[in-house]
Amino acid sequence: MPMEHKPLLIAEGLKYDGQGLIPAVIQDAENGDVLMLAYMNREAVERTISSGRVTFWSRSRQKYWVKGETSGNIQRVRSIYVDCDQDCLLIKVDQTGAACHEGYRSCFFRQAAGDGDSLEVVATPLSEAY
Amino acid sequence: MPMEHKPLLIAEGLKYDGQGLIPAVIQDAENGDVLMLAYMNREAVERTISSGRVTFWSRSRQKYWVKGETSGNIQRVRSIYVDCDQDCLLIKVDQTGAACHEGYRSCFFRQAAGDGDSLEVVATPLSEAY
Repeated sequence: MPMEHKPLLIAEGLKYDGQGLIPAVIQDAENGDVLMLAYMNREAVERTISSGRVTFWSRSRQKYWVKGETSGNIQRVRSIYVDCDQDCLLIKVDQTGAACHEGYRSCFFRQAAGDGDSLEVVATPLSEAY
Repeated sequence: MPMEHKPLLIAEGLKYDGQGLIPAVIQDAENGDVLMLAYMNREAVERTISSGRVTFWSRSRQKYWVKGETSGNIQRVRSIYVDCDQDCLLIKVDQTGAACHEGYRSCFFRQAAGDGDSLEVVATPLSEAY
């Protein structure tokens, strides 16, 4: 059943790429940590704004993906920012649990080390992978 | 003249899109503000790591773009993180001046307001547009 919402002007003004997508950087509103990056199409942007729950378009599964719908690790929208070129979003969220499906709070849990020769895990998982 | 550097293993392991690009989220190492998002190809990733200066691939100009080369608003690399899927980078930087060519510290200087019907400027520019 389609979600009820009115067309939103900011979703209309954004620049989507050749696949109709725009990247959204998700940031923890509490401590400023960057949690993940994923993609939205126009409808996902509208659903995110209307529902207050971060909703992506899954490129691999070709479907809407309400973050946390199955894992419970939801992202509640605190504020949404648009960049100068209107081709990227920044969304500050209240994150429940781990943002990363590997169980880490942030998807960016590995850091480049040794002059770019290796990756080092720099975080502790909060939970099992999901 | 090509920059001297050895091939870097982490640049090799990344997943680039159909155009050979990977998005890089640039974050202020001091206060955690997300400054901008731009794209790198493999060579730009290697140049960034080798030189310690954030270097993108400009899609519009089809050339390497050492951030701040003309404006002086350079980004010195503090640390580089790779996400779980290895298809996005997070780079913490020491930012000189404004990251945004419109003169704002961050490119994300506009916030969605009024239920997504408008954008509101929520920052003060540091300088003239450049």
